[in-house]
Amino acid sequence: MTPSDPTTAYRAAGVDLDAGDETLTRIRGAVTATYTPQVMAGLGAFGGLFDAGALKRMDAPVLVASTDSVGTKTKVAAALGRFDTVGQDLVNHCVNDVLVQGARPLFFLDYVASARLEPRVAAALIGGVAAGCQAHGVPLLGGETAELPGVYEVGEFDLVGTLVGAVESARLVTGEHISAGDRILGLASGGLQTNGFSLARHVLGDRYAEPLGDSSVGDALLAPHRSFLGAATPLLDADLVRGMAHITGGGVPGNLPRILPEGLGAVVAPTWPVPEIFGLIERVGTVDREEMYRVFNMGVGYVFVVAPEDVADVCRGCPEPLFEVGTVVSGEGVRLL
Amino acid sequence: MTPSDPTTAYRAAGVDLDAGDETLTRIRGAVTATYTPQVMAGLGAFGGLFDAGALKRMDAPVLVASTDSVGTKTKVAAALGRFDTVGQDLVNHCVNDVLVQGARPLFFLDYVASARLEPRVAAALIGGVAAGCQAHGVPLLGGETAELPGVYEVGEFDLVGTLVGAVESARLVTGEHISAGDRILGLASGGLQTNGFSLARHVLGDRYAEPLGDSSVGDALLAPHRSFLGAATPLLDADLVRGMAHITGGGVPGNLPRILPEGLGAVVAPTWPVPEIFGLIERVGTVDREEMYRVFNMGVGYVFVVAPEDVADVCRGCPEPLFEVGTVVSGEGVRLL
Repeated sequence: MTPSDPTTAYRAAGVDLDAGDETLTRIRGAVTATYTPQVMAGLGAFGGLFDAGALKRMDAPVLVASTDSVGTKTKVAAALGRFDTVGQDLVNHCVNDVLVQGARPLFFLDYVASARLEPRVAAALIGGVAAGCQAHGVPLLGGETAELPGVYEVGEFDLVGTLVGAVESARLVTGEHISAGDRILGLASGGLQTNGFSLARHVLGDRYAEPLGDSSVGDALLAPHRSFLGAATPLLDADLVRGMAHITGGGVPGNLPRILPEGLGAVVAPTWPVPEIFGLIERVGTVDREEMYRVFNMGVGYVFVVAPEDVADVCRGCPEPLFEVGTVVSGEGVRLL
Repeated sequence: MTPSDPTTAYRAAGVDLDAGDETLTRIRGAVTATYTPQVMAGLGAFGGLFDAGALKRMDAPVLVASTDSVGTKTKVAAALGRFDTVGQDLVNHCVNDVLVQGARPLFFLDYVASARLEPRVAAALIGGVAAGCQAHGVPLLGGETAELPGVYEVGEFDLVGTLVGAVESARLVTGEHISAGDRILGLASGGLQTNGFSLARHVLGDRYAEPLGDSSVGDALLAPHRSFLGAATPLLDADLVRGMAHITGGGVPGNLPRILPEGLGAVVAPTWPVPEIFGLIERVGTVDREEMYRVFNMGVGYVFVVAPEDVADVCRGCPEPLFEVGTVVSGEGVRLL
């Protein structure tokens, strides 16, 4: 065990990933593939080391940090035996959370726990996290695995991640300039993303294998949480955004008010395409419409609040289609038309 | 829900902590008590914002990050219904992990998950994390609570934390100058700290109420994981330390080699006072001595590797007693005398 071994942190957690050399090699390869020149490897294993020279070169650096899990989407992954996608969900979720304030990701850390952690499963989970990191050019700087028999149900696991990002103080997106009349534009979600799985599983039970469109219910449920960093970057660079919200648990009505100044609310008129999986849940569970919009993102993963005069520039500048979601109005709360 | 509300991140996770205003007030009070002027509160709730001006003023800042949990110590806490101490364990564990590289803590984030999270329990757990943060002058910058029915066993919980710290590149403690003949000095642990609970619980079963010395088995097991930041700081300031190791899972033989340069090992002669709880586990479980030292810290929570000529200065400079743990020797691994 040398200090430069990226699996040290995992091994040190008491999980004998030595059990299979192939597993170790896979994890080592996946983790080192995320390394950037900022990772000061070889210097120690108790904490991950990140060269923060870039922060020193900023005018007024602000660190933005977020911890998240993927909720009971883990249960769908466990039921389907597909462990390589939820790690990407986790990274993308965290990337979007710090993006709301205008921050770009610097590095990521993960935590994988189970009653008993099979090396094959650990490798797939960590591999998924590493893939999500690599897609953003972000190092997986550290991690921890834990076996907690009697805490976790047998065969289940939890996956937790922490992202640290940075933004120039002057470029912080705070929502403070949002005004009545501003337009709300949305980006398509990748399905449920990582929210509403308790209700979805309650309604759908075990029908993962049933067909849904070109695919299956299981595939639709496991569809990856999208990262919106690429879509937002040109808009942020052009200073076209007054506020942003990541549509997670609570849906549009729960998340949009988090960035609206006091005395402002929104009217939301859903005309965007709602993915089939939501229609299935609504129908099978006879869930009422208001409840659907309060629990699920209903197809909108991320929203921008922009001045009415900037809508055309925003739509031109965004590398993917934007949906009209609604309008900011005087008052409180979100009214669904 | 206003963006400046420190409970927003907890609420947004889908846990209805609104259930009791008293609970919300307790959490709000505990979290805001950790805030330092670096916390840019009121600017948004999706990610925690930390003014990194101090990093800009450093010559060559390095960020050091660590994610950890407290393992199945959570099961002891749940069995005893005492939820206010494990948060401090978690913070202290992470503080020690980044300290190994010479870093001081900047900010902390936590994650609390259970099958169903009682507001009272969540408040006690988060309150413990906040207390640990406050003791170090570190803000609890963000957090997440999650209810994952079917993932966690009923009544159990997991508690995960991430600490980000910083150190001047020139002040990084790497262990690279450690030489044969260097002395290993140790600081007393607070009992098991957060490691070896699976074996301890297997051996001791439910005998938490049994007396042990002036106290009980349960109290001894829940004794807080100590922070070694205060003891290490004067030694680091005086540049008296060649290497440090946090004695976690794997004990002295598992953690000391993590900082030793290739070709070096250690001889450890345990003469320090071993807390009663370890003797009890050894006796009741007829665990052999080697195994005890491989699983538990056996009373040594943190070690310093120092040049022989500096031992007297180190002992004088350290604000608490140091134990003689052993000596660095040529060869590999740790030999227990």
